[in-house]
Amino acid sequence: MWPTTSPPSAFIERRRRLQAKLKGPALFVSGFSRPRNFAGNRYPFRAESHFLYLVGRTIEGAVLLVTPDQALLYAPEPDPEEELWTGAMPSFDELSEAAGLSVRPLEELEVAPDTVSLPAQDWDGALFQSELLGRDIDPGSGPEVEGATAALADAMIELRLQQDEAAILQLRQAAWATAAAHRAGLSVTRPGLREAAVRAAMESAFGEWGYAASYNPIVTTRGEVLHAERSDLVMRNGDLLLVDVGAETPEGWAGDVTRTWPVSGVYSPTQRAVYEVVLSAQAAALACVRPAVRYLDVHRAAGRAMVSGLVDLGILRGDPGELFELGAAALFFPHGVGHLLGLDVHDMEDLGDRAGYAIGRERATRPSDRYLRLDRDLLPRMALTIEPGFYQIRRLLDRPEEVGALEPFLCRDVLEKFADVRGIRIEDDVLVTEHGSEVLSADIPKRVDDIEALAREARQVAN
Amino acid sequence: MWPTTSPPSAFIERRRRLQAKLKGPALFVSGFSRPRNFAGNRYPFRAESHFLYLVGRTIEGAVLLVTPDQALLYAPEPDPEEELWTGAMPSFDELSEAAGLSVRPLEELEVAPDTVSLPAQDWDGALFQSELLGRDIDPGSGPEVEGATAALADAMIELRLQQDEAAILQLRQAAWATAAAHRAGLSVTRPGLREAAVRAAMESAFGEWGYAASYNPIVTTRGEVLHAERSDLVMRNGDLLLVDVGAETPEGWAGDVTRTWPVSGVYSPTQRAVYEVVLSAQAAALACVRPAVRYLDVHRAAGRAMVSGLVDLGILRGDPGELFELGAAALFFPHGVGHLLGLDVHDMEDLGDRAGYAIGRERATRPSDRYLRLDRDLLPRMALTIEPGFYQIRRLLDRPEEVGALEPFLCRDVLEKFADVRGIRIEDDVLVTEHGSEVLSADIPKRVDDIEALAREARQVAN
Repeated sequence: MWPTTSPPSAFIERRRRLQAKLKGPALFVSGFSRPRNFAGNRYPFRAESHFLYLVGRTIEGAVLLVTPDQALLYAPEPDPEEELWTGAMPSFDELSEAAGLSVRPLEELEVAPDTVSLPAQDWDGALFQSELLGRDIDPGSGPEVEGATAALADAMIELRLQQDEAAILQLRQAAWATAAAHRAGLSVTRPGLREAAVRAAMESAFGEWGYAASYNPIVTTRGEVLHAERSDLVMRNGDLLLVDVGAETPEGWAGDVTRTWPVSGVYSPTQRAVYEVVLSAQAAALACVRPAVRYLDVHRAAGRAMVSGLVDLGILRGDPGELFELGAAALFFPHGVGHLLGLDVHDMEDLGDRAGYAIGRERATRPSDRYLRLDRDLLPRMALTIEPGFYQIRRLLDRPEEVGALEPFLCRDVLEKFADVRGIRIEDDVLVTEHGSEVLSADIPKRVDDIEALAREARQVAN
Repeated sequence: MWPTTSPPSAFIERRRRLQAKLKGPALFVSGFSRPRNFAGNRYPFRAESHFLYLVGRTIEGAVLLVTPDQALLYAPEPDPEEELWTGAMPSFDELSEAAGLSVRPLEELEVAPDTVSLPAQDWDGALFQSELLGRDIDPGSGPEVEGATAALADAMIELRLQQDEAAILQLRQAAWATAAAHRAGLSVTRPGLREAAVRAAMESAFGEWGYAASYNPIVTTRGEVLHAERSDLVMRNGDLLLVDVGAETPEGWAGDVTRTWPVSGVYSPTQRAVYEVVLSAQAAALACVRPAVRYLDVHRAAGRAMVSGLVDLGILRGDPGELFELGAAALFFPHGVGHLLGLDVHDMEDLGDRAGYAIGRERATRPSDRYLRLDRDLLPRMALTIEPGFYQIRRLLDRPEEVGALEPFLCRDVLEKFADVRGIRIEDDVLVTEHGSEVLSADIPKRVDDIEALAREARQVAN
């Protein structure tokens, strides 16, 4: 489906709710596109997320000024000389109608000394912000904000933590486009092709509907590299392909889904066995997702199920509960079970752990929990991911300082039989509902039988 | 074909030639990837072009130091904690072998006070550069460099103006991937689809071979918008689709090709007539391309042929030579006939007109010539584009101050019959040879009959 835009009423309501929390003026910058190799050749522009949340339109160099009484958008005036090249820019009237507020020329912006603003992510944005505010803003310094700026950060977090109706529709559309990509990727996967062929088919599948990638796609037969961004290897029979790809709506809302499928179309018995363990860990985590549950407990449920499954496979030996407490999950699953999802694929990570962690909660230092990006008590309409994984990472498994006290419980001879399982991750996008949860990405095949059936079907069509 | 990397000898030779021109140390920064919406979600990294020319590898935050006596690469050391997430970074030994020089940790870099450097394009790069050099560098200030920095700019221009064997191979590969994209795009074009579907198929066609887009693709039924970057319109029978899309090799070398094909698969008689005029203008320009010819004369040859063709169609009336001198070409063809091509799609545009214009030559102010990016006497092994176009731009045609003295010669009643021709551009990548030129993108269908035949074939395959 071609993505829809949110109605002006959604932005009016979001700003109204923000205004109710404000004590003074707050300023939001959209940011600037950045040169790729020279000024005339620029990366595609994506506006800053807080700006998108409140305005919904990707306008370069624009400023939203919100006070307790009103909200005004200041934008660069359309430049006729420029329009010869780029086509008509949206008029102030069009912007005004789309975002539901008055629009004025940027030159008319006046910034009061007590105006606060969340730090931009890069120097171009931060220097512009510094100029407007008359004080130095360091790019990406969101995690360190204090005082009135911290209050603004907390106000935005409070707004954005629980998704409104327009946001949920955007997230559904992102999930739809993400699903189209995953089905396309599975369909074109063949031994002998490069990973890049799958990646290209996936980006094309959402690109043709006007969506962008919400992050750099991971399409790799080296699934044990958690954020592998290279896709230049030739896929071989026997390889698993780990595919972590999400689509973003033009309004900026993200999908984020991982599947791991066999290049041959059929999982080997060892691959299937571990896949089922990861799937059971995901099911265990998903079963916990509902309001009032602490996300750390969702994470731990996945870890416990993982350890239990690995004991069943004989890769670990001992009591699953005790092994879990010893940190056995982190040996194979060294990342968090998920994170907030929204306008950012790690929603509001520009503000550091302020969004993901409730006040008074801090990241654990345990290897099993230190990478967890979210540890709040869940609330209705939070969007998040659930993405356990199993990886054979030599840097962890081969080092006594990492394996530690787990060595006697690790059956390396059994593990060797699973050499064709480099990395498996299964990730879905989830919306917390009033009494439970809804998987937004439920349309994307996940069970072994469903994946193999789709792979079979694609091969029949091709022949 | 999967892109090849240039041999270390190519980079050794380029640096050797640079060293012979240097009077003191010169420093080249590769640059940094930039956050998209938060620090952990970044735009794909592309290194600065001068760095790529001399090193050939995309390494973030690296510095090449070239003195008259030696060249050394300083790079960040691989970080084991980081590698858990991103996979193994290339070791210093691997880098050293690939680029043919010694590699040292960035911490060991010592910068002498007389070291010069070409300004980075963005603040992140420029601030890093400022820190290394101990003086302020403004991003994108290449056009204004003076003194020793200007001498370095001129040395790089002298090197990069005439492509070496390795560069020509890279440009051929970029042209090959660009051709794959254009054939894929033509094949999927159908009424009822959005422009984005064609764009996605094109990016996928080179993406699957490991190439990126060398600039933001233009795929539009509003061809009269010269740099239209939106592709969200539904294509209709009767529309022309203007497609300006080029691939870039992983080493950074660009393709840049435009074709304009009918959405229905068949040009209307009016579209065909104007298309033939643009094609004849391109042929006239191409026929001039050989060493020692001044590029302004190539541009003017295209303009003359365009005016002559428009007189034949009855859109203009009068003596073609006189009309041309009155500026009639610029009414319909208000941009330059092309530009340098290389690592940058507008090669070395980071240095302003210093690369495109020979010393003592400046941009003309005439409307017909003011957008011309190149006006050198051609040399063997220069790479450039030839890209005349015809556009009905209301901002030009409807304004007396733009039409000026041409009004009596403009047959508006005839022009009205060509309403279905919004914009046509035909662009190829050309290498100047010893005695003439070679079209690198010659494989991409360009004649009306060839385009219609390919469109027909694609429809037969689909049915």
